[in-house]
Amino acid sequence: MVTTDIATRVWSHTFKLDPIVRSLLDTDFYKLLMQQMVLGLYPDVSATFQLINRTRTVRLAEEIDLDELRAQLDYARSLRFTKREMIWLAGNSFYGTSQIFRPDYLEWLADFSLPPYELKVVDGQFELTFEGPWTHTMMWEIPALAIVNEMRSRAALRRFKRFELDIAYARAKTKMWEKVERLRELPDLRLSDFGTRRRHSFLWQRWCVEALKEGLGDRLIGSSNVLLAMETDLEAIGTNAHELPMVIAALARNEAELRAAPYRVLEDWQSYYAGNLLIVLPDTFGTGAFLRAAPDWIADWTGFRPDSAPPIQGGEEIIAWWKSKGVDPRNRLLVFSDGLDSDTIEEVYRHFHGRVRMSFGWGTNLTNDFRAVAPEPSDGLKAISLVCKVVSAEGRPAVKLSDNSAKATGTQSEVQRYLRVFGEPEYGKRAVAV
Amino acid sequence: MVTTDIATRVWSHTFKLDPIVRSLLDTDFYKLLMQQMVLGLYPDVSATFQLINRTRTVRLAEEIDLDELRAQLDYARSLRFTKREMIWLAGNSFYGTSQIFRPDYLEWLADFSLPPYELKVVDGQFELTFEGPWTHTMMWEIPALAIVNEMRSRAALRRFKRFELDIAYARAKTKMWEKVERLRELPDLRLSDFGTRRRHSFLWQRWCVEALKEGLGDRLIGSSNVLLAMETDLEAIGTNAHELPMVIAALARNEAELRAAPYRVLEDWQSYYAGNLLIVLPDTFGTGAFLRAAPDWIADWTGFRPDSAPPIQGGEEIIAWWKSKGVDPRNRLLVFSDGLDSDTIEEVYRHFHGRVRMSFGWGTNLTNDFRAVAPEPSDGLKAISLVCKVVSAEGRPAVKLSDNSAKATGTQSEVQRYLRVFGEPEYGKRAVAV
Repeated sequence: MVTTDIATRVWSHTFKLDPIVRSLLDTDFYKLLMQQMVLGLYPDVSATFQLINRTRTVRLAEEIDLDELRAQLDYARSLRFTKREMIWLAGNSFYGTSQIFRPDYLEWLADFSLPPYELKVVDGQFELTFEGPWTHTMMWEIPALAIVNEMRSRAALRRFKRFELDIAYARAKTKMWEKVERLRELPDLRLSDFGTRRRHSFLWQRWCVEALKEGLGDRLIGSSNVLLAMETDLEAIGTNAHELPMVIAALARNEAELRAAPYRVLEDWQSYYAGNLLIVLPDTFGTGAFLRAAPDWIADWTGFRPDSAPPIQGGEEIIAWWKSKGVDPRNRLLVFSDGLDSDTIEEVYRHFHGRVRMSFGWGTNLTNDFRAVAPEPSDGLKAISLVCKVVSAEGRPAVKLSDNSAKATGTQSEVQRYLRVFGEPEYGKRAVAV
Repeated sequence: MVTTDIATRVWSHTFKLDPIVRSLLDTDFYKLLMQQMVLGLYPDVSATFQLINRTRTVRLAEEIDLDELRAQLDYARSLRFTKREMIWLAGNSFYGTSQIFRPDYLEWLADFSLPPYELKVVDGQFELTFEGPWTHTMMWEIPALAIVNEMRSRAALRRFKRFELDIAYARAKTKMWEKVERLRELPDLRLSDFGTRRRHSFLWQRWCVEALKEGLGDRLIGSSNVLLAMETDLEAIGTNAHELPMVIAALARNEAELRAAPYRVLEDWQSYYAGNLLIVLPDTFGTGAFLRAAPDWIADWTGFRPDSAPPIQGGEEIIAWWKSKGVDPRNRLLVFSDGLDSDTIEEVYRHFHGRVRMSFGWGTNLTNDFRAVAPEPSDGLKAISLVCKVVSAEGRPAVKLSDNSAKATGTQSEVQRYLRVFGEPEYGKRAVAV
């Protein structure tokens, strides 16, 4: 007897919208950490964020329906933190520290919602912009990316037949599990899920996190996704992002302030957080420039996240810097997080094993590796390099140089000015896959 | 919101038994064809069937619980053909012929049930025997095999965790679909599912048949499984099996009757069936012996099923015989069905393409290829060479020589007598995987 659960079926068909982002906790943990600090120190600063599709060959507005995108964004705007989410944020300990979120911040958060957006289509791409107070616009980054990416997968999957879907997910699971089997060979691995922004879909990210939990045990140290961390009893993982130095640099009134901006951000951060949250993100204006001018106290921080540099060279550069400051790298942490896949994780792990503590934030290739899983070639399932970046603060253009000039953002004249101040990035231009 | 369908869950937990064989149609089509003929021509002959595990290293009685096996066999004995099954058998056309089953047979079938069995454990193996009228004992072959094989997979799967199951089926689907993608490259392929007896499980066989239907379209010509043929709107496929010449040979009163037995069976068959059902199974006592003494009228039959010979040599031998009889092989059919997998199907297809019509009956490696899909090595999922053979008729031992002496069955003295009459098999002894 084949039974159809009529109630479930009828209920499913009543949905006008299948919302992609269903909770304000469905975001990266670092956004909350940064938001608390921004609210405390820069409550009146305005900042504009914008969606940037670095994969120009993919014409997003031709794959995704504008009205459906509006409906998803509007649904996300209707969300508020729920009572149990607030209780979890207040009561949970993060990295062993209890009450990381201060009561005044949580009180403010209870009324928070995502601010308005502006959306239009220009030359086949979406121009999606968030203007307003930094405390608010910053929170669009992750939901906006997750929504656009999942709408793109949904559009591609709509062309699949029932059976092709079955095969595609079977293949994706098979592929993912092969990666897990490779990674479980690394005994001291410390890995976390950083895949929210580029995920194929929410449900797929959840499956991937559960697969890691099952396969890696406590070598999976957590997820950057706060909702998934809560639901699957994992640690929420994250620190800080480029937007902090980018905004502070944009606000600088002279060259001295601009030079000092990357370090001022760390001082701000230190006034809020300690221990495992003291991770330096050195590459906003080039890692070389950052290390050359870095004050000694930065060597006391827990570690670095060498993001856009090639991981082995970037790591070696930081290790050499620690040694020059008389610090033993074995007491310090490197967090790798840029474009990783199981093979690069393995390579970097083997390279540095025993010389420095390491952890890996695995993103796009964890939660959106659907290459070659469709029965027919399907470009719509290939992950693209989509970001949501701060483009200006208080009306002044924001700039990121990074260790890979293909990842530079900002107006051309401002990028030139920053290059004069900080110098050319040492690693040149490398293709950005994801 | 995660909803649990409480009604379904409670209902599932009320099952004392999850029956493996739930319909008397869950058998191979050739059993019905043969049963009709046996009922008509040999209604009073008794025949004993027995389960034979050719993979002696697998100690079945240590993997499968004796009481659970009894419960499954008893459940199968409780089955009767249902009204809609009888209507479908009576009203459907098979190979374009309507009313292949005569009204008197169908009337008899309406009251049919599986006869008693004897079951005990000897040296780690099940001794499972079916004694009684041939018309009844013959019908145990497929359900007995399907039950034992599925109980073995279930026992292996019981040790899997929730996640390991998910991965194992994802891998099995992925693997199966890769085979489909290879086979769809063969434009004139004619393939059918022959995988009932060795299947991993009923649900998995159904999935595999649906995968073939989706991937191969009308190159899938049908399934040997009558229930699946009915449920998925496919042609039921099958002809006749070794038990016919084995029983007739066992009944032979002298050497002349023994020599004539293989041809007498074909005369019997011809009196019941025509067209696509006129397929010779030549290898019961060796294909060479069969062809040497075969009367000319056999060259008028639609085709041959060279079962236990190596497919290319066996096919060539039959083609040469047709030519010696002045018959153009392009008007004849070869049905390959022994131990096939996608690579052997492709090889045989390419070898004979254009020279003879071909079809492929794909069995164990279609419905039970779980090699290397378990997260941990699991021998319990590896298909074994399990058969259910006629061992005696009217108390006289039955013998099969086959083209592969590893597949010979019968008492040693009788096998020797048959070898003197028919000669040594020409292809010698080859390992039997499945």
